[in-house]
Amino acid sequence: MLKFISMAKKIEPVENKFLKEKIIKRLNDLTKPPNSLGRLEEFIIKYCLCRNNENAKIKNMTIFTFAADHGITNERVSPYPKEVTAQMVINMVKGGAAISVLCKNAGIKYYVVDMGVDADFSRLSKKFIDCKIAYGTKNFLYESALTNLQVMQAINKGHLIAQNYKADLYGIGEMGIGNSSSASALFSILLNISPKYTVGAGTGSAGKMLEHKKNIISKAVEFHKKYWNFSPLDALKRVGGLEIAAMVGFIYGAAKNKIPVVIDGFICSSAALIALKINHNISDYLFFSHQSKEKFHKQFLKEFKIRPILNLDMRLGEGTGAALAMQIIKQALNCYHQMATFSGAKISNKNI
Amino acid sequence: MLKFISMAKKIEPVENKFLKEKIIKRLNDLTKPPNSLGRLEEFIIKYCLCRNNENAKIKNMTIFTFAADHGITNERVSPYPKEVTAQMVINMVKGGAAISVLCKNAGIKYYVVDMGVDADFSRLSKKFIDCKIAYGTKNFLYESALTNLQVMQAINKGHLIAQNYKADLYGIGEMGIGNSSSASALFSILLNISPKYTVGAGTGSAGKMLEHKKNIISKAVEFHKKYWNFSPLDALKRVGGLEIAAMVGFIYGAAKNKIPVVIDGFICSSAALIALKINHNISDYLFFSHQSKEKFHKQFLKEFKIRPILNLDMRLGEGTGAALAMQIIKQALNCYHQMATFSGAKISNKNI
Repeated sequence: MLKFISMAKKIEPVENKFLKEKIIKRLNDLTKPPNSLGRLEEFIIKYCLCRNNENAKIKNMTIFTFAADHGITNERVSPYPKEVTAQMVINMVKGGAAISVLCKNAGIKYYVVDMGVDADFSRLSKKFIDCKIAYGTKNFLYESALTNLQVMQAINKGHLIAQNYKADLYGIGEMGIGNSSSASALFSILLNISPKYTVGAGTGSAGKMLEHKKNIISKAVEFHKKYWNFSPLDALKRVGGLEIAAMVGFIYGAAKNKIPVVIDGFICSSAALIALKINHNISDYLFFSHQSKEKFHKQFLKEFKIRPILNLDMRLGEGTGAALAMQIIKQALNCYHQMATFSGAKISNKNI
Repeated sequence: MLKFISMAKKIEPVENKFLKEKIIKRLNDLTKPPNSLGRLEEFIIKYCLCRNNENAKIKNMTIFTFAADHGITNERVSPYPKEVTAQMVINMVKGGAAISVLCKNAGIKYYVVDMGVDADFSRLSKKFIDCKIAYGTKNFLYESALTNLQVMQAINKGHLIAQNYKADLYGIGEMGIGNSSSASALFSILLNISPKYTVGAGTGSAGKMLEHKKNIISKAVEFHKKYWNFSPLDALKRVGGLEIAAMVGFIYGAAKNKIPVVIDGFICSSAALIALKINHNISDYLFFSHQSKEKFHKQFLKEFKIRPILNLDMRLGEGTGAALAMQIIKQALNCYHQMATFSGAKISNKNI
């Protein structure tokens, strides 16, 4: 763990005043009033600064959906049986899931990464990456979800994927019945906020089931806080998941290669939170794609002063919000590279 | 005018309980928790209801950018000289404008419609449609911007374009130095709100120029309100523009053919406002693409309880917000048509 932490601490802010000025100068020469592309210009600047290149282009985009099962499902915190995780992995690889459809139509490459699904897969396509570390986590109501070794293995796998696959823009998503429970518990522990506020519907808990979910997570959080050593990775071990750990590693692996990562929704944000707690500089490499309908996500974004790209009440996960936001970031960069300049197009600039 | 108004009044709401239930049933059979695609599901329902077809697909998308000049520019209300309208028409047709870049990369067909630019164009490409009615409007500080005949001609041209060009989804945008002044004056007259609140930066008026713009529009609005006969088309004649009139006609022409229209930003919203004032049922055919950074747009949307698809601080016009929103609507429909169903994919549905 120390090796990963010390690597992660080395990530520096992307601030580069000289580069930023060059990017803005070029933006202001495009045939449009200054700043009139609004946040698209913010995305262009952020993207080029990340890549440390005022001429950075987005040619290839890739989304990884990390999948794993969760022992906490024994407590009936989700309306769906945990078998759905494995079934959805197959559906995603076969092209029938929302994320598969969105990626296909947006020209985004797409992989499903099995970090710990409670099933054996055979003969799946090239879109499937086998990184299985266990057949799911332990039930964190009674014990730590993961061992230290599993946390480290999952982080390393995520890190390696980011380093090995290459793209100009990465997106991350997740699949795992029960993982909104993990995410809520992580938010509660790391931000010291009662599960009353961090627990929401997930895939659709409502009424009595939602109350039950809140109670279960409250008990679990109370239990683990007694023993928590205040490190983000210890919280991850206690109440996290293999897909969440992998995303933490992935984020740092991508940053090391100067590839920005588009974060999907609520569960991905819990991985981003761990990454931010380790080294806040990592925020320079993250685009938050959308505000999820999942209750606590709005408050998390507000707390960290993050303005997401989209707010479409989505709460599906898989990377679906990331896919839509990546299309917008790509279009921003298209404008940057393909628009005419005032001088080139013989267009009069401002009178004053 | 009476003929248009009587046609417009005949547009009925798209409500169809039976059809809506069929669409929702199909949505709930897709491999995702119910409603988890959030507003994408709202867009799917709205789109299919408009088309009166639970199996409606979006294959072809087209954006029309209506361009015209404005006599009010004599009052120096914009930091850009009015020649920029014609220069930008050429830039848009040649592919160098933001809208050209966005459409090209999103697979959206794209036309620029000259409704009244103060220039003669020759040998422009197929992307250019000549509907010129005049070389710009009169200065509405002293007289009506348009004649009744011109309003009717422009509405008819817009109407015909929507009827003749066909697509599965239309978007509209505009180009015209000075037209944020027209739009603000229209909002002020039609909603009875002082230009203090409706006038904003437009392409970038600031400081003294912005104060001057507010004064000019205030004087003009005061003048025209004395003679205004309370009809939306009379307001359009007094302080509107040829591109705005064309968009009013376009919206109704599209609705007549059951083709929904994606409205761009502030200026397009002033055309939408006129359309709504004529017959509020037209709202069933309109998607509001984004909340513009232009000051009054937020208030307009709030007033009409419209939640736009995007909010990216854009204020460029041309149809740029519409182009981005159309990609999202298209992706929503892609999910609807291309996702697997629970039964088909052998995925367990909810336990409870």
